[in-house]
Amino acid sequence: MQLLECVPNVSEGRDAEVLERLVRAVRQTPGVELLDWSADRDHNRAVLTYVGEPEAVVAGTQALCREAFALIDMRKHEGAHPRLGAVDVIPLVPLRGVTTESAVALARKLGEWIGGQGVPVYYYEDAAVRPERESLPDVRRGEYEGLATRLASPEGAPDVGPAVFNARSGASIVGVRPPLIAFNVNLATTDLSVAKRIAQAVRFSGGGYRYVRAMGVALEDKGQVQVSTDITRYEKTPIHRVLETIRSEAARYGVVVAGCELVGLAPLAAFEETIRYYLQLHDFSIAQVIENRLLGE
Amino acid sequence: MQLLECVPNVSEGRDAEVLERLVRAVRQTPGVELLDWSADRDHNRAVLTYVGEPEAVVAGTQALCREAFALIDMRKHEGAHPRLGAVDVIPLVPLRGVTTESAVALARKLGEWIGGQGVPVYYYEDAAVRPERESLPDVRRGEYEGLATRLASPEGAPDVGPAVFNARSGASIVGVRPPLIAFNVNLATTDLSVAKRIAQAVRFSGGGYRYVRAMGVALEDKGQVQVSTDITRYEKTPIHRVLETIRSEAARYGVVVAGCELVGLAPLAAFEETIRYYLQLHDFSIAQVIENRLLGE
Repeated sequence: MQLLECVPNVSEGRDAEVLERLVRAVRQTPGVELLDWSADRDHNRAVLTYVGEPEAVVAGTQALCREAFALIDMRKHEGAHPRLGAVDVIPLVPLRGVTTESAVALARKLGEWIGGQGVPVYYYEDAAVRPERESLPDVRRGEYEGLATRLASPEGAPDVGPAVFNARSGASIVGVRPPLIAFNVNLATTDLSVAKRIAQAVRFSGGGYRYVRAMGVALEDKGQVQVSTDITRYEKTPIHRVLETIRSEAARYGVVVAGCELVGLAPLAAFEETIRYYLQLHDFSIAQVIENRLLGE
Repeated sequence: MQLLECVPNVSEGRDAEVLERLVRAVRQTPGVELLDWSADRDHNRAVLTYVGEPEAVVAGTQALCREAFALIDMRKHEGAHPRLGAVDVIPLVPLRGVTTESAVALARKLGEWIGGQGVPVYYYEDAAVRPERESLPDVRRGEYEGLATRLASPEGAPDVGPAVFNARSGASIVGVRPPLIAFNVNLATTDLSVAKRIAQAVRFSGGGYRYVRAMGVALEDKGQVQVSTDITRYEKTPIHRVLETIRSEAARYGVVVAGCELVGLAPLAAFEETIRYYLQLHDFSIAQVIENRLLGE
């Protein structure tokens, strides 16, 4: 079984009727399973998560785009979150039996289709065609409001689609990225500086693990602080190693781990090393998990 | 999705052609997935493991029985392992969305069908109708060779099927049991008495955990000893607790855990507490695992 995930971010977080139609477009696509969706009023933005065979996921995303381009007018959009267009970002995430290369080929196919709808497209992360467009924040710089100027300059030319400002729909950013694990570690202290120092120690930008982003956050209701992490390649930087490093760094301040949180969903493979490490099952493989066998290779 | 597992033990471990036909009977049943099979020459016995929707698993088991009753003659059978008949034991194992009660109802249906083939049937474990038949070794006592005498006495009457000795096929034992986790802990010592004392400490019969069977075994090739355990209800006695108790008991002898082994397959649910405990994810649920979501409730 091949399994691709898509986590599009759409620029509508307030109008219940529009949200209903966006969600329905995905739900009604045969072979697509909508795992989750949420909308944020302040961001005026919705995030959908769905999976399926690659072609079905592309079809579901096209159905979503059709509705979004028809229903959302960026000239009236305001919200706290940076964005370039009505369908702002479309990350394709290979989960099972899908290579990065084949996911990139699907991203291109999707990008060409979106371009054909008159919407300029930028490719990012593993689908980027220019190194300066690998990082999503870089691609989104200047936002919708700067898009007309940007498209008029050679450096701002889209990777596919018209180099013409589409006032209604803006631009879309299509890419491929590995599944991201949102793993938070809560510490039994109210001293935020401890969480901040540990976040600094474990994250890539501070000299820590290559595939970890982290920040320190106060959890005032709980009387704790949190090291909030994103693990961007769990097969290279496994969850247990991040936790044990945080635990070890916390110990130097006499602080213990009170509990952890896994935000959202994760593929079974993200826990393979967890089980191997803690149960010392050196030869364990998720092929030994019955549910995994049922889904096929 | 409903998922039932069946792990029948059949009294043939030598004749490749017969084994081939037994395996094919299961493989060819629509909706049944054969996960594993193995045969042992000394035991002259084969074990098959397959899963599927409950009705499909019953159909696959009937197909297996038809072949086994046609191809195996117990009058010629000899082997090291105790057995009552050609299809010796049929354990049904509820894995997902199947209650013990509904599995017992299927065991009865299967038992009646086997009885209808002229083979006496005893029910065991969760399907037992008499307390003295709950334990499989108790039901198997006297073996095939004692079956004619046993069936002639009132205490030996089968639970279903004819109270008449079937010389060709013997009797079958049909039951329901929870999934069993075969988890072995290897210790960095050659002192077998350490493994034996720890096995005694963790197993139910020695005052240990209620759902643990354990024994100490020498691993001469590795220069280690092993605490070999069966965890019979992992939701009550989780894997991590058995490992950590073994680790703690080993420490009193200055012995450390060198590694562990998980034999065969296990359902995802068996690792839910492992992930919760070691990653301190107090609220983690296997509903957060994408593969689990895809298989449905």
